[in-house]
Amino acid sequence: MSDKSGIVDFAKELAKLEIEILSTGGTAKLLKESGVNAIDVSEVTGFPECLDGRVKTLHPVVHGGILAIRDNQAHQKTLEELKITLIDLVIINLYPFKETILKEGVTMEDAIENIDIGGPTMLRSAAKNHKFVTVVTDPKDYESVLEEIQEKGDTTFETRYDLALKVFQHTSHYDALIASYLGKDKDSFENVITVTYEKIQDLRYGENPHQKAVFYKEIGKQLGTLVEGIQLQGKELSFNNINDTNGALELLKEFEEPTVVAVKHTNPCGVASAANIYEAYNKAFEADPISIFGGIIAANEIIDGRTAEKMKNVFLEVVIAPDFTEEALSIFAGKKNLRLIKLADIKMKNAKALDMKKVAGGLLIQDVNSGLLDKTEVVTTAKPTEEDMEDLLFAFKIVKHVKSNAIVLVKNKQTLAVGPGQTSRIWALQNAIRNGEHNLEGSVLASDAFFPFSDCVEEAAKAGIRAIIQPGGSMNDEASIEACNETGIAMVFTGMRHFKH
Amino acid sequence: MSDKSGIVDFAKELAKLEIEILSTGGTAKLLKESGVNAIDVSEVTGFPECLDGRVKTLHPVVHGGILAIRDNQAHQKTLEELKITLIDLVIINLYPFKETILKEGVTMEDAIENIDIGGPTMLRSAAKNHKFVTVVTDPKDYESVLEEIQEKGDTTFETRYDLALKVFQHTSHYDALIASYLGKDKDSFENVITVTYEKIQDLRYGENPHQKAVFYKEIGKQLGTLVEGIQLQGKELSFNNINDTNGALELLKEFEEPTVVAVKHTNPCGVASAANIYEAYNKAFEADPISIFGGIIAANEIIDGRTAEKMKNVFLEVVIAPDFTEEALSIFAGKKNLRLIKLADIKMKNAKALDMKKVAGGLLIQDVNSGLLDKTEVVTTAKPTEEDMEDLLFAFKIVKHVKSNAIVLVKNKQTLAVGPGQTSRIWALQNAIRNGEHNLEGSVLASDAFFPFSDCVEEAAKAGIRAIIQPGGSMNDEASIEACNETGIAMVFTGMRHFKH
Repeated sequence: MSDKSGIVDFAKELAKLEIEILSTGGTAKLLKESGVNAIDVSEVTGFPECLDGRVKTLHPVVHGGILAIRDNQAHQKTLEELKITLIDLVIINLYPFKETILKEGVTMEDAIENIDIGGPTMLRSAAKNHKFVTVVTDPKDYESVLEEIQEKGDTTFETRYDLALKVFQHTSHYDALIASYLGKDKDSFENVITVTYEKIQDLRYGENPHQKAVFYKEIGKQLGTLVEGIQLQGKELSFNNINDTNGALELLKEFEEPTVVAVKHTNPCGVASAANIYEAYNKAFEADPISIFGGIIAANEIIDGRTAEKMKNVFLEVVIAPDFTEEALSIFAGKKNLRLIKLADIKMKNAKALDMKKVAGGLLIQDVNSGLLDKTEVVTTAKPTEEDMEDLLFAFKIVKHVKSNAIVLVKNKQTLAVGPGQTSRIWALQNAIRNGEHNLEGSVLASDAFFPFSDCVEEAAKAGIRAIIQPGGSMNDEASIEACNETGIAMVFTGMRHFKH
Repeated sequence: MSDKSGIVDFAKELAKLEIEILSTGGTAKLLKESGVNAIDVSEVTGFPECLDGRVKTLHPVVHGGILAIRDNQAHQKTLEELKITLIDLVIINLYPFKETILKEGVTMEDAIENIDIGGPTMLRSAAKNHKFVTVVTDPKDYESVLEEIQEKGDTTFETRYDLALKVFQHTSHYDALIASYLGKDKDSFENVITVTYEKIQDLRYGENPHQKAVFYKEIGKQLGTLVEGIQLQGKELSFNNINDTNGALELLKEFEEPTVVAVKHTNPCGVASAANIYEAYNKAFEADPISIFGGIIAANEIIDGRTAEKMKNVFLEVVIAPDFTEEALSIFAGKKNLRLIKLADIKMKNAKALDMKKVAGGLLIQDVNSGLLDKTEVVTTAKPTEEDMEDLLFAFKIVKHVKSNAIVLVKNKQTLAVGPGQTSRIWALQNAIRNGEHNLEGSVLASDAFFPFSDCVEEAAKAGIRAIIQPGGSMNDEASIEACNETGIAMVFTGMRHFKH
């Protein structure tokens, strides 16, 4: 028993019911000191606990007593011959492997010493034989199991089944954590993959009200991610809030300067960098003052009073930032539903993380898209100015996070229009040009993938766009370059595509 | 040993190296018959194998021999006192739990009997003590382990570490399967969730060429899903092919009539139903003859020769259908890169499946969206005709599968325009109206969520749209209803929203 909480009270009540109690060393001592008459397992096995506790319960007398089929006469005869007593109730929790690996500065030796061998075996033995045996691994279950025994003289089959299920959920989780810890420096995708998560909370519903949903977290600290955020006020995060905020954070991490990202339906609707967060917010808001309604705001600097004052006038779902000033908090206090989330290490990145896409019957797993570009090759007669180049890179960082096919128009580190999620690239561009409310003269354009034809350049020229950034790599690149040269547009190839779906 | 393949040869070679071999019943017999001198484990433990093999190796003499720390003097002394011999190499594979549960008509008793207890314990003991002990669970590793012992006299630490990692990957997978089997009729999301998958194939790359990726499948038959598809010709499926084809299949399953779905960048670009698959394809193609370029086609009826002849003229990535006629196959044979996938049970649905969205540091899990509508309530003075109603339902089935905010325009069971993935609903509508090449007069409109303002109705009226289907539920519904009544549009509320991101 590594978690002895509640065990004395539980054992006392069991003893009152004239249930005989076997126990290993430390717990047996505790029980005896508390006046519970516990028998040492070693008395029963005739074999000492040994090797610093590495071997205690791994004995046929113990496991025979658990695993024997009660209504099988041959089994019963064997038990008599081998003098094995039945064990009907198994109560164990495991060495704290998770708690150990989460400790600061833990060594591999500590971790390995905390791999429990005897415990999982007892749990699994008892769970296998749940037709007859009750197994409890979670102290939270002590009370209900006790009540059932007190009331009915035994647990019900249904209870034993549920407890057995809980055991295998627990042992698979336990071993998945061990595998993940031992494999943490390995880089290959295995033939079987077993991933394990802990529930953060049941959600009110999923993407839509008729879908049930839960939010889980990976084990251990997940620095720089929403799961480490501290909610300072507001309603509970919804499924779509979590998904949108995650998208906003991923995009925000592309920037070092004070930057604000507004997201709606997982696409950015306004992004801006500036000398300070107040200006960045104003620019991100003005980028698209309509779509931001009901949106998510992520900022990479502390939200101060004047910025909060501006945000207050808009209906927002979530604001996430490294922190909020006292003044900002008191301004937001009037908007009780608005979710404010503090994420101190909002700039932290984790390039090693994995991305998953669920498909029916399977799962696609890939590296997260941590790249930006392979090169910045100017392929046109016109060269971008230094300011153009800054805006081009700014736009390319954003278009990477827009659903494909995607076009982003930028001027002075502010999005002027975003064209997301089209089945045709020219439509993404036309939509961006038509839907924005800004003068596009002198703006720059980013595309998440190459231009299949020269039509995008021609449309861009008509709109007054002066520079383009895109991966390049189409068989038709030459036509687009020519169209640029004819219209005086500067174009940069990055060599890196950024589809996102 | 449940899988005895290769074990005799392996043991013979080990015996040549004067390695003493212990073994349990069946394997010991096999080895002795093959001339390998194996000692029965029960001779060493002094305890018989019992309870129909439920207890064989769960003995301190076995586990002490595995778990003792070789360079710990106290441990060595204990071994001497207790007459325990060191065990340096453990070779085991587990009872075939997975194979058992995948058998037709398997009973719970069979499944439970195939939960291995002693095997995982031996594997885990040996893996814990990998500093000294070599553990082999995969017959594929016999050869390399043997070679290493032959060449170097022992395995290297690196090898033992990798084998230990493999053990915990295996045991977590094994127990996750047991938990999943025992929990198959349970309906709740657990506090810890451990999910396990088997690799189908490494992919050339992920969503983009700089991302590494793998395609995994859930354990067991996944009827009606891409993972059960048989590829008849063409290049290997890419990450984006898989994701797009999955989306196409999900949408296709909404329909009973002969239907063709064309998908590009995970959004449908053309969908049509008709009396036969040839007509359905022609209508789906004509819906948007541009976006379909490089797209995915899913059809719910056998592709015949004349349909293949039509498809041949377009550059397509994937065609998936319940089957292809001989004639169709010979027509496609000329397009070697085109991926043809046969999925016989393409119409089969699995409403109990789970959907996941990976977010940094965590995971969102939700029920798949298996609903369509709660009601079909006509809320306007104008009533939709029977044909309108059919088209409205057709359009609503499609808009459910378009990225939000989404608008779909339909006439005569053919999409005329699709407006996907916008941050503003009116833009989704305007884009659909402007980007299509069709006369929209008399068409119907579906929206995946309610109209926040009456502007969508006004735009629809201008375009000649005669009926609208949407969830309803906005505080502003009355304004939209009024706008419909002023312009003679019929509007139906479904009561069910379909956000998709």
